[in-house]
Amino acid sequence: MEALSKNKIKWIRSLRLKKNRTAEELFIVEGAKIVNELIENWPENISCICTTTNDINYNGKCYLTDERSMAAISNMQAPQKIMAVVHMPDLKAQRNDLILVLDGIQDPGNMGTIMRTADWFNIDQIVCSKQTVDLYNSKVVQSSMGSIFRVPVSYQDLTKYLSSSNLPIYGALLKGTNIFEQSFGRKGIIVIGNEGNGISNELLELIQHPINIPRFGKAESLNAAVAAGIILSEFSR
Amino acid sequence: MEALSKNKIKWIRSLRLKKNRTAEELFIVEGAKIVNELIENWPENISCICTTTNDINYNGKCYLTDERSMAAISNMQAPQKIMAVVHMPDLKAQRNDLILVLDGIQDPGNMGTIMRTADWFNIDQIVCSKQTVDLYNSKVVQSSMGSIFRVPVSYQDLTKYLSSSNLPIYGALLKGTNIFEQSFGRKGIIVIGNEGNGISNELLELIQHPINIPRFGKAESLNAAVAAGIILSEFSR
Repeated sequence: MEALSKNKIKWIRSLRLKKNRTAEELFIVEGAKIVNELIENWPENISCICTTTNDINYNGKCYLTDERSMAAISNMQAPQKIMAVVHMPDLKAQRNDLILVLDGIQDPGNMGTIMRTADWFNIDQIVCSKQTVDLYNSKVVQSSMGSIFRVPVSYQDLTKYLSSSNLPIYGALLKGTNIFEQSFGRKGIIVIGNEGNGISNELLELIQHPINIPRFGKAESLNAAVAAGIILSEFSR
Repeated sequence: MEALSKNKIKWIRSLRLKKNRTAEELFIVEGAKIVNELIENWPENISCICTTTNDINYNGKCYLTDERSMAAISNMQAPQKIMAVVHMPDLKAQRNDLILVLDGIQDPGNMGTIMRTADWFNIDQIVCSKQTVDLYNSKVVQSSMGSIFRVPVSYQDLTKYLSSSNLPIYGALLKGTNIFEQSFGRKGIIVIGNEGNGISNELLELIQHPINIPRFGKAESLNAAVAAGIILSEFSR
């Protein structure tokens, strides 16, 4: 294995910024579990691997380095022993029956968790507003737990997107039909709003079926990823 | 308002450690929304408030300080203009019909989100294993969004606790009855396991009703807070 040069360290660090990730179409994944999943399932996506251990079963470009350099290139508080620089996957939706629309999700952990949940419930694709957090933000990648390589995600003008769709459009709102009383078809678009402000005003008029998760206690709202999970679960029943 | 002395700063910083929080029975909450909620609903719980602004409607102990000192005492990456040092609430369960048991939840964000979800669905109390993350960890407090003042939480020996209960015990497992086919009574204990390892072996034999959220796609697992949300939602139908 080659040693990790200062220039390479600088290059990997540059991928912390969205503009550099976008220009190079590369991003970072960290940790043994996900890197091994990559080697097994998507080796063609790997640009290179950086590791502090020789104990690795990968024939492509691999840099051996020390803990200090790993800490310099890591995005995590507790740097892992292994990370990979990865080409952004070019995922295409196989069907377009069940679509999750994210209108300005800001928290990277929520975004990753929503991708993981969408993957569990076999959602065909996720469409995000341009104000939604970047898919390749390191915390999104980590919390998606590999789903980033399975769920197609795009960023679009949501007004245009929803206006031109023929699917029924459901929206998670504080007022609407009780989700337990709503019947869902096998096709639809589900819109989840921003953590603090919900669905934006300009999209509200495009929601054909406002749905609501009934509140039994006193919390003001549900976390966006939990709300998405409950709605996707109801859709899948 | 008094100025915030170096000694007070030191004292507030000391509350970052669980042992100091436990000894003083105090913890920190940050941000205008939650501090205003405190002033309105639980003023008796406030030990003191620290703020960079005079614009505050509170008659108790209040320290005026600058952004630099706020950054020194804050637990957040982006320090807020206001924080409160708060007495731990002594919440008692009003009923004991629906109980959430957390077996080793480690991620503070998950823990806070689960509390918020339990509050939404009006769970009577949360009982945690002693390995579960500390309730007064700053990230738990922030992600609970005020539910920390409403949902009673205790830390107990779960083997003893579950063995001595008369309620039916449900557990979220990867194998079990399909949650959509399980009928739930109005009473029960729901056990949620650790993020990586699930429910611990010694508790598994105490689970009377293993339940499972069916998987339609390829994600290996659901996030613990999302799983808890889906199960609590099914229980509430």
